[in-house]
Amino acid sequence: MTKIAITGASGFVGQTLAKKLIETSPDAQLILADVHQPPNPTKSSNVECIAADLTEASACQSLVSRSPDAVYILHGIMSSGSEADLELGLKVNFDSVRNLLDTIRVERPATKVIFTSSCAVFGRAAVKDVASEADIVPYPESSYGTQKLMIEFLINDYSRKGLIDGRVVRLPTIFVRAGAPTAAASSFVSGIVREPLHGQESELPVDPNIGIWLSSPRTLAHNLVHAMNVPADKFGHFRTVLLPGYSATSGEILDALEKVAGKEVRSLVKEKRDENIQRVVLSWPAKYDTSRARGLGFTEDVGLEQTIKDFMEADK
Amino acid sequence: MTKIAITGASGFVGQTLAKKLIETSPDAQLILADVHQPPNPTKSSNVECIAADLTEASACQSLVSRSPDAVYILHGIMSSGSEADLELGLKVNFDSVRNLLDTIRVERPATKVIFTSSCAVFGRAAVKDVASEADIVPYPESSYGTQKLMIEFLINDYSRKGLIDGRVVRLPTIFVRAGAPTAAASSFVSGIVREPLHGQESELPVDPNIGIWLSSPRTLAHNLVHAMNVPADKFGHFRTVLLPGYSATSGEILDALEKVAGKEVRSLVKEKRDENIQRVVLSWPAKYDTSRARGLGFTEDVGLEQTIKDFMEADK
Repeated sequence: MTKIAITGASGFVGQTLAKKLIETSPDAQLILADVHQPPNPTKSSNVECIAADLTEASACQSLVSRSPDAVYILHGIMSSGSEADLELGLKVNFDSVRNLLDTIRVERPATKVIFTSSCAVFGRAAVKDVASEADIVPYPESSYGTQKLMIEFLINDYSRKGLIDGRVVRLPTIFVRAGAPTAAASSFVSGIVREPLHGQESELPVDPNIGIWLSSPRTLAHNLVHAMNVPADKFGHFRTVLLPGYSATSGEILDALEKVAGKEVRSLVKEKRDENIQRVVLSWPAKYDTSRARGLGFTEDVGLEQTIKDFMEADK
Repeated sequence: MTKIAITGASGFVGQTLAKKLIETSPDAQLILADVHQPPNPTKSSNVECIAADLTEASACQSLVSRSPDAVYILHGIMSSGSEADLELGLKVNFDSVRNLLDTIRVERPATKVIFTSSCAVFGRAAVKDVASEADIVPYPESSYGTQKLMIEFLINDYSRKGLIDGRVVRLPTIFVRAGAPTAAASSFVSGIVREPLHGQESELPVDPNIGIWLSSPRTLAHNLVHAMNVPADKFGHFRTVLLPGYSATSGEILDALEKVAGKEVRSLVKEKRDENIQRVVLSWPAKYDTSRARGLGFTEDVGLEQTIKDFMEADK
């Protein structure tokens, strides 16, 4: 019986992943960890939910002492948050992750580790081209992207040495994200669909023609499970992969929203430019070459309308 | 009066740089730091030589409390050493450097920091092409390269935020390095010239047709001083630059040695293949595109014969 730990498990991705894991492997044992005890999003009694502050070494020890076969490292301070508070970002996004990796390589070597990185590892240098893992040099222009990238290289080195069996997946912006707005600069992307569908007004802070790289929760959950199951040797000499996604502008998102939910719902979205957010969004490439992911068997995304319908269905 | 600190100052690069700094700015105040008190390689009385173990936070504090205007971070565990001992490499090449950077950004923000990184940030992926900062993705295949690269990104982030004024220079293999052989896989490159010139036999462990990327101490010292003096805004949005160098094979090095010092000296070098060293050397690109360095005003190298003559002259 596989035992799988998820950190940052209270978050939207963690909860979505936990449901998917139990759905695909009903016998799996899950350990869901977060600063505050996470909810169990499944009906399975094989799910243990624990409060663990992984910035404390003892919490890393305690988690690893439960002998997981695989650890999903999802916890972190999001992009705006870690840009505003460098110390906090370093402590959570770098130090606590390194501490967990070091505990794993010492206490439970060769454990599978799936780390969610981000397209924020790329900066403006990548905007002019279609970025891929192999072609475009990552020069992050955010502390968030920097901290993610440093951990990527650490995981690659530990995996090269056989100390852990790491898999680094760079996530697109998740659309539509359920729940409250987040401290990510991309938070509005889900907001302009989620809030109107709840009858609330929402602000679009960027030019509607700017493209953004997206993944649906459905595809993301599928691909996160797949990341654990790819044979290690298929990765070749580095463990980093850009997950599939698709590029859409805010204008296209709103068109799809209108098609699925009507004109009135769309009219709840007001344009109100925020130059800070626009500058950050413009520093992200809008398109990626994900041929490596396809070669590793990751799944392509479902597109705008299906994603909005999925959200409405799950939201009921 | 400029005050300049150098860490790892007992090493060949640190000693060479200190001499060059005093030569070009006789009024400069230098602080030379290393685990053991470094020698003063100059006749200047403006040179303070201190023992400082920078893996201790108090040593970083003490160094920064001397209020340097610029800090050259040269200390580190070399490539073979940090591959063999991961913990030691992390402690010295990553933790102590981060600690020093954090102390600088808090205690003495906007200080100039010049960090010597390495072409070891590239792995085999770069071998097929001519590597540049902008075109080839660094995927280090050594713990040394990984640790250097993590610090590079940290320096870029701190500089982007104006917390330090960082400059990252990736060094070629230094040829001819004076003194004893080092724990670097490239140690033989200097050995096949230095030892015969001292009347001693020396072993060539690789195919004489394999190209290696080199820089002379003379050019390196000049370029390290220049790295401090480049106006910050000329770097653009990232602070990393490949220093100029030139590609030569061991065969070409031996031909130049024969030309400068005669057939008998050359005959002291014996071919004795070491597959481990050859494998490491083959994983390094032999050629780099250094147009960025030229654009920033760094100086091209002087070539094989001049370099060997320089070594003989200094050696007298």
